[in-house]
This record gives sequence, structure tokens and C-alpha cells, in this order.
Amino acid sequence: MPAKPERAAKQGIFSHKSTHVQNLILELNDMADRIRRSGRKVMALHRGDPPVYFPTPQYVIDAYIKALKEGRTGYSRAQGTPELVDAVISRYKKYGIPLGEKDVIVTAGVSEALLFINNAFIDRGDRAVLLRPYYSQYMMRLTAEEGDAVMGRMLMEKDWRIDINGLRKALAKAKEGRRPKYIMITNPHNPTGTVTERRELKEIVDVANEYGLVLVSDEIYDEIVYNHHTFTSIGHVAGGVPHILLNGSSKNFDSTGFRIGFMAIPGTDRVSEAMREKFSEYALARLSVNTPAEYAVAEAISNTKEHDKAIKSMVDAIQKRVNLTVDLLEENPYLTVTRPGGAFYVFPKLDMKSLGFKDSREFTTAVLEEECVQLTGGSPFGEPDHFRIVALPPEDVLRDAIDRVNGFCERHAR
Amino acid sequence: MPAKPERAAKQGIFSHKSTHVQNLILELNDMADRIRRSGRKVMALHRGDPPVYFPTPQYVIDAYIKALKEGRTGYSRAQGTPELVDAVISRYKKYGIPLGEKDVIVTAGVSEALLFINNAFIDRGDRAVLLRPYYSQYMMRLTAEEGDAVMGRMLMEKDWRIDINGLRKALAKAKEGRRPKYIMITNPHNPTGTVTERRELKEIVDVANEYGLVLVSDEIYDEIVYNHHTFTSIGHVAGGVPHILLNGSSKNFDSTGFRIGFMAIPGTDRVSEAMREKFSEYALARLSVNTPAEYAVAEAISNTKEHDKAIKSMVDAIQKRVNLTVDLLEENPYLTVTRPGGAFYVFPKLDMKSLGFKDSREFTTAVLEEECVQLTGGSPFGEPDHFRIVALPPEDVLRDAIDRVNGFCERHAR
Repeated sequence: MPAKPERAAKQGIFSHKSTHVQNLILELNDMADRIRRSGRKVMALHRGDPPVYFPTPQYVIDAYIKALKEGRTGYSRAQGTPELVDAVISRYKKYGIPLGEKDVIVTAGVSEALLFINNAFIDRGDRAVLLRPYYSQYMMRLTAEEGDAVMGRMLMEKDWRIDINGLRKALAKAKEGRRPKYIMITNPHNPTGTVTERRELKEIVDVANEYGLVLVSDEIYDEIVYNHHTFTSIGHVAGGVPHILLNGSSKNFDSTGFRIGFMAIPGTDRVSEAMREKFSEYALARLSVNTPAEYAVAEAISNTKEHDKAIKSMVDAIQKRVNLTVDLLEENPYLTVTRPGGAFYVFPKLDMKSLGFKDSREFTTAVLEEECVQLTGGSPFGEPDHFRIVALPPEDVLRDAIDRVNGFCERHAR
Repeated sequence: MPAKPERAAKQGIFSHKSTHVQNLILELNDMADRIRRSGRKVMALHRGDPPVYFPTPQYVIDAYIKALKEGRTGYSRAQGTPELVDAVISRYKKYGIPLGEKDVIVTAGVSEALLFINNAFIDRGDRAVLLRPYYSQYMMRLTAEEGDAVMGRMLMEKDWRIDINGLRKALAKAKEGRRPKYIMITNPHNPTGTVTERRELKEIVDVANEYGLVLVSDEIYDEIVYNHHTFTSIGHVAGGVPHILLNGSSKNFDSTGFRIGFMAIPGTDRVSEAMREKFSEYALARLSVNTPAEYAVAEAISNTKEHDKAIKSMVDAIQKRVNLTVDLLEENPYLTVTRPGGAFYVFPKLDMKSLGFKDSREFTTAVLEEECVQLTGGSPFGEPDHFRIVALPPEDVLRDAIDRVNGFCERHAR
């Protein structure tokens, strides 16, 4: 759902597809900057950026510095340094997912992987399956290739479980047009924090198999899972269905600014083989990612003793903050809130009728203007009645921010 | 000129445009790896990667380490950290090109800038002007958007000066079809090492003005210019014609593996304004580049005292190596060689008839196989009778490699 195609199209010289390239999660940034320049402080709860609140572990910093001191400053192997590829292979081996060295492609974050995937699969009018709510970049990258979404749903009233029957209906209906190329899932989920159950994943695999879809699973939050929840990678249940696992250092390894992601393509089928070759070409085309960061992330992954300590301490803190966020938002009678099982987002539904806003964009704009709290509207995720709040800040900051949001709703309710 | 569209198209599931995404400069890498695994040493003269031969200056490494120690590991401002943007502004101010903070967009190398530009300008069937020989990525990124090139030429027999009359003819002829969007130039030039004269630049500006083309000037080698040559940025002579200057840390600041590039868009016209806004959206869409590297490059640029020392010493060495390379290649009767004024490439023409090869790909493949010297064929640059050699290695390595190339030619000549 691009916000401003008209304006851009008017500019005439640009490509039609370029009107879709944007970042709706950051769309209030200019307004936030304006507020800051006026001398007021903005509480930024719009961005999933762990290093702002949890310093990147020292052993990772040390490895980065070591790489710099050793002169790792030239181009690296386009698909990833052997050291990083080996580390990724070991990581998935622990998961019980065997990978060869050609099955891993290192990318500049999951962002670049999404660019590769959509560019490689989608010509104008081609289709892919998304599940609403979706992470905004999935839709953006699909429409930026002038592709169309076949839309499935996750149902809030069923704790955001995937509506498999609805998905089958949407796909059956879509049979009249071009066959969709892939289905995109996120697990743990952004923006809802849902951890998808094995049983559901199996159903998705069945659907993919039936409709000849490549499975693309964004698992960037796979170690940020709370007590009583268990993460299962789609790689465990995909069987012979071609699949791409997306991951990276940003969230689990608390280093968004490194821009190191990785794609794993474990399949032995003909399509997986072709995908490995294709994405290898995409990697070669842009030469390499940041070389010293690759060495840092290789150590971040390989040093499991240090990593286990770091991730445990971070997830413990995040779990508390997320639960506090849910507790405080539940006090707000104009919101419906679900409790996440992982990641670090909460995605409440607004009682728009009582609050008197047209959509969440109007809501988040007013909250920023009046309360100096920057949230993300639900529209970028396909749910205009929701908003997303990032539950990473310390508890006092979260309390203050949510008090403001709750007070704002009280004041505006009618 | 993509090498393997047929094979990729056969794969069926992929987009048509994806058949063009590749890196022809690295196409012999697999073969080189095979040779290495067989126990033989490969002399790699195919890649413009200065840090392999000139360690990245210590003050830059120190700044990078400082940023890491200060915890600069989260996302940064998508268009570039304020510190890096300020440094870029100061750099161009010294050149006499005034920039505001919104005129600079930081990218993951010039590679990403080329992706942004082609994606933003080119829909299927749109056109852009390239000058042959061209850096391979220009053609690759244009065809990857299913765009077409209007082709101008640089003439070897005129020391690689731009054939302005030929260019005007090509553009006059192109008037029947869609109006080209931009003209791409490289100065200093890859692969020929030509430093374009001010007079020529003015002619290019005139042509751009007449045909409504945006000027895109890749100036990534602008400080690697030898004695008796003077670099002029197109920014000095562009006047009111909208232009984009491409640059970055890779070559001048000897840090290819950082993946830090920058676009400067100085114009005050409506098109420049629209381009700034458009490329800002492109930057936002992929979140940020590597954050600590931005701090390193800000210091690399700002500390002009250290930089002046480093660049002088590097360019002195490169100039010697390039001249040696030319001298040695001139002894080969089957080559025509021109002497570069900048960058670090030499781009000889092969006497194919005497040598008995079909094209430079056949030639470079045989040189690698028989002599373990990895060169780049001329085809990726639009000149199948040439090859490119990177003159960065130490003189003894260059001597050895070129002796082998010359010996190879003697042996194969008929």
C-alpha cells in the first residue's frame, strides 16, 4: 500500500515501479526531527533496533576489531567469507538442518535478501502469497517489482494463527491468474510476536506443495522466544518443498548496524539448486557486503558459549518489557491486545470508532504531535486499525510512553 | 551483453530480468578456485581492490575501532550519518562544488547507487546513454531493469577521447524511440584509465542539455590521477543541467570492503530536487548501510592531513606500477596499448587474427588455464577484442604476470 504514487508519478522522469520504493515504518521521522529541533524530546518506539538498548556483546566487538587490525578491509567473497558461511552451517546443524557451503548466501541484512528474492522471482504481474499482517518490506519489495499479492490472513481472534482455510480459498480463486511464485512467512512474527506452531507450519508446507510455491521463511527473531514457547524452523518440516530461510545478525546477535544477513537454501531439488545459482549471481553483482563485519558475525555465531549468555540475558529482559507493555496497554479500554511469544513488538487493535480517527496513520501522527511518542501505524503491515509498539526500551521509558498513549486515548475518546 | 540468459530462462520460475544479473568481471573465479585447489598459484589481476596491496591507512582503522568501542552498532540514518554527510560536503566544498545536507545520499558502494539509479529511472524499454567501453555494472544494471542502451563511443585511436559527433548521431537516430533518461560517464575511466578533459566534459554537458539527459558521473577514482593530468568533476561544468556525482571510500580511501559510497546531487532545479527525494526513499527502503564504517569514512575524509599523505604515497606507487605495466605490455607485438592518466587499469587491444582466439573470453580463459594469470576479458566492457589488467600488485608480481602473458601470446601467434 504505497502512500504517494501519484506525487512520484507526476515527476515523470522516474520509473513507474519506483513509486513503490519507500519505508512506511520511518514515515514519521521527518515530523519527529521537527519536534526534536523545537526542543522537545521524542520517545522513539517505532524501530526494532536492539543495540540502542542492549550494547552489542563485547566478544563480537572484539572480533570486529581483530578483523580490522588484521587488515580485512578489501572485498570479500560475494556470497560470504568462508568463515561466516561455516559459522552459519554450524548454526543450522545444531537446529538439525544440514547445509553445504553453497547453500548459504550472505546478504546486506534481510532487506537485501528480500530485494534479491523479489527481483529474481517477480516480473510485472507475477504474484506471491503474503499473510496479513505482514512486515512492510515484503509488500514494498513485491510491489516495487510490480508484482501482486495473493493475500492470506492471520487471525487476531485466534491468537494470530494462520487462517489456512482462508488461504486455500484465496489460492483456489487465484488459480484463474498467474501461478504465485512463493509464500512468505515470518516466524517469530513481526509485528504480532506470534511463534508459529509446528502443526501450522506443516499445513503451510502442504499448501506450498499443492500450489508449487517456494517457501520463504523470515526467521530473523528465531532466538528471541519467551518461556513456554518453542520455535520451529520451516526447515524442519519442509521435506522436499523448496525453501529459503532468512536470518542474520541484526536481532539475535544484536547488531542491526552491521548489515549482515544470510539466506539458507537447504533443498536438494532442482528448484533449490537453481535458486542457489541465481542468488549467487545476485551476490556477485554487488561485489560483497561489509567484510570486517562478516568476521565479527562469524565469531558472534561460532562462540556459542558467549552467545548463549548474551542472548539469554537479552531475551530475559525483552520478555519482561514485552509483558509489561502488554499489561499496561491492557488497561486501555480502547485497545485489544494480544500477548506475543517472541520478537519484541506488540500490535494492539484500536477502537477507531470510539477514538474518532480515520486510520492508524492519523492516530500515530496525533500521538507523535501531542505526546511526543513515535509509534508505527498498522497500515504498513496491512492492518490500518492497529499500531505497532517496540517494547525494547527500559521499563521506566515504556511506562512513561504507554501512560501517554493511554492518556491520549482517554482524552480523544468520545 | 549478458552471457547466459538462455540457461536462466530455462529455469522458468525466475523473472525474465533476473537473467541479466551477473558479474562478468568475476566469471573466471570458479575456474581460478579450481586451479588453486589443484595446488597451483593463481596471479589475480582481474579485480580493482587496493587494500589487497595497500593496507587501509591506520587512522581510518583507528576511527573504525573507535566507532565500535563507542557502540555505533545500531541502524544509522538511512541517507548517511550526519558526520559522514558533513565530511562529504566538506570534500566537495574543496572542489568548489557546494552541497547542502540533503544533497548527499550514502550508499553501499557505487554498486548500490547504480542499482538505485537504474531502478528509479528505467522501466522495461526505457533507455539510457552509455559510452563504450563502459564499466560492466552500468550495462548490467540497465539491462537488469530491461532497459536499452543508446551507445556512444570512446575512441582508442584518439587516446580514448569521447566521440562527440558519433554520440550526437546516435542520439539523433534514437529520437524515433523513447527519450533516454540519463548519460553515464566515468572519470577517471574504468577500464581505460582516461582522465576526461574539461573541454570534453563541456561537450557532454551540452549534449545532455540538448537531449534532456540527467548526467551521471562515476568519479570513484578522482584522486587517483597521475602527474601531468588534471581531474575535473562534471560538477564544475554542469551548470543548470541536473547531475549526479558518484563516489565513495573504496578506491581513494583504500577500503573496498567497507561498502561505503555516496551520491551527490548538487542541482537547484526541479529534477535534482525530485532525485534527492527519490533516492532518499531508496535509502530508507533498505534501512541503513554499515554504521561503524560510516564513522570510519567520515574520519577518512575529514582528516585531510592524514589522507593527503596516504593518497600521495598510494598514487605514487600506482603510477609507477601502471607505467611499468604499459612498458612491459608494449613489448608484446600482438597488443596495442594506451597509457592511462588515472585509476589503475590498463586495457590493451588484442591482435585476435594473429593470436587465433575468437574473443577475449577465449583468450583470458586460456591465459588462466595455461599461465595461471587471471585477467578480465574486454566483453564485459563492451570491447571483445580487449582485456583489462589491474596494475596494483608490486612490480615483481606485475613483471612475472606480464612476462607470462607476453610469452603466452608468442606461443599462440601464428
